[in-house]
Amino acid sequence: MPASPLLIVGSMAFDDLDLPSGQARDVVGGSCTYAGLAASHFAPVRAVAVVGEDFPQATLDDLGKRGVDCAGIERAKGKTFRWWGRYADDLVSRTTLDTQLNVFADFKPKLPAGYSESPYVLLGNIHPALQLEVLAQIKKPRLVAADTMNFWISGERKLLGQVLEKIDLLVINDEELRQLAEIHNLTRAARAVLKLGPKRLIVKRGEFGALLFDSDDTFFVPAYPLEDEVDPTGAGDSFAGALLGYLAQKDATDRATLRQALHTGATVASFCVEAVGTGRLTTLEPGAIRMRMGELRALVHPGD
Amino acid sequence: MPASPLLIVGSMAFDDLDLPSGQARDVVGGSCTYAGLAASHFAPVRAVAVVGEDFPQATLDDLGKRGVDCAGIERAKGKTFRWWGRYADDLVSRTTLDTQLNVFADFKPKLPAGYSESPYVLLGNIHPALQLEVLAQIKKPRLVAADTMNFWISGERKLLGQVLEKIDLLVINDEELRQLAEIHNLTRAARAVLKLGPKRLIVKRGEFGALLFDSDDTFFVPAYPLEDEVDPTGAGDSFAGALLGYLAQKDATDRATLRQALHTGATVASFCVEAVGTGRLTTLEPGAIRMRMGELRALVHPGD
Repeated sequence: MPASPLLIVGSMAFDDLDLPSGQARDVVGGSCTYAGLAASHFAPVRAVAVVGEDFPQATLDDLGKRGVDCAGIERAKGKTFRWWGRYADDLVSRTTLDTQLNVFADFKPKLPAGYSESPYVLLGNIHPALQLEVLAQIKKPRLVAADTMNFWISGERKLLGQVLEKIDLLVINDEELRQLAEIHNLTRAARAVLKLGPKRLIVKRGEFGALLFDSDDTFFVPAYPLEDEVDPTGAGDSFAGALLGYLAQKDATDRATLRQALHTGATVASFCVEAVGTGRLTTLEPGAIRMRMGELRALVHPGD
Repeated sequence: MPASPLLIVGSMAFDDLDLPSGQARDVVGGSCTYAGLAASHFAPVRAVAVVGEDFPQATLDDLGKRGVDCAGIERAKGKTFRWWGRYADDLVSRTTLDTQLNVFADFKPKLPAGYSESPYVLLGNIHPALQLEVLAQIKKPRLVAADTMNFWISGERKLLGQVLEKIDLLVINDEELRQLAEIHNLTRAARAVLKLGPKRLIVKRGEFGALLFDSDDTFFVPAYPLEDEVDPTGAGDSFAGALLGYLAQKDATDRATLRQALHTGATVASFCVEAVGTGRLTTLEPGAIRMRMGELRALVHPGD
């Protein structure tokens, strides 16, 4: 059975990263890039994003060779979105030193012909108004997942509420969940957010793993315990991308497939952290993914 | 097969707790109390601790009825150890407002006749010199576990090193592990500490679960996701007590039994958090433990 295509709408960026291991400049990043590369190991990806005139064509060509269809990546006049961040020595806390939206400020996702029939959709954390525009163009999807962020939760709650009513799966981190629900306890916050619309909710907790909540189930996947963490940038997007890519590959959203998709997401995210930028995502082999997924399963196996 | 006895050496205390839900005063606590009650659901417990003249005999009688042999609990002249702590609204961070060691300052563990042949031993986080004194009195134990704390790691590293060389299992929290290894990365810190002597290491991470490391294995158990957390005091001691109690019950320390013991510890710790002090540990029924252990297993089951 061939994998179903996955549509990903998000950002493409240049990241300047101040890491404990040193400074990295002009690193190709953005949610669409990380999620797309992560998903490309499992399913054909359709990327919708915007880049500036300074974005190398060779990078887009390379994405294309990896199974990421770049027909929906618009090249606009001006510079590519740029983010500069500094990580603490523990790689957990980070500070944004500069954000230049550039061409991303006027991003209007345009779906190429045929993309509106994508069965699997991942909406990156763009403005909820844009997420709604994409949703309006999508016909009969099998699963739509969305991410969001603190900025939209505090500033665009009403529009975000409309997004939540239309999606199947919300993928956010624990602090965003608490902010959205205005409840500190994660389990109760999750139950409250499920009442806002999404059928399922996945809470990303970084090095502490991720939790899946739906109407009658809770599932937990730990983060793979890494000995050498280099750069956590894009780990959350890689998690979401691999998760959706796995569902598209299996063309299924039942409970067992979802649980395996979370293991897949956690596995690919752990590889992402092992190198600067997308370095590890582009060298990843199926055998390495399979082996680490086996280790992750063994890590939680109750032992009998 | 009858359960093997478990010797627990630790503190007994009065805790004054400033909790988000209100103030609680003169709450019976201490590592020996929490670990003992948690373990008593699985194996006969031999408690070695000290209390002052103000400690109610009725509480000791009640422990005795629950299978905690109190012959090793010395009643000394003076007042019982007292701790006053204030928890933040998220119940994660806490501040010590006052510590009165009282009779605990001169605690010298005295093992009643027969205790030195206890096959399972849990040494609470008392002074490493006292842990060594107890270790010197123990004959042919099957498994000795020890806890420690930041105070001894920074102030008594040499004596603590001698303890580490003599124990089978070290049970500490993640910050203590990092401090002991002087390495931030948990996995590498764990590998470094295993080289100091203990055959196995369990890292407690509170609401994020616990990790087991030994020479060739890593195992993870999540915390049970609670909707109503009331008081985390003693959760770590309850975890260790139930873990050791389970091993003593099964009289086994193989890999599968250890993994099940970690699930048992995580389960009982989650109950501990549901009420102030030891309130929930004393009303806990075997059926409730079994049911929640089943939920914890289902929480991490990969789904196929």
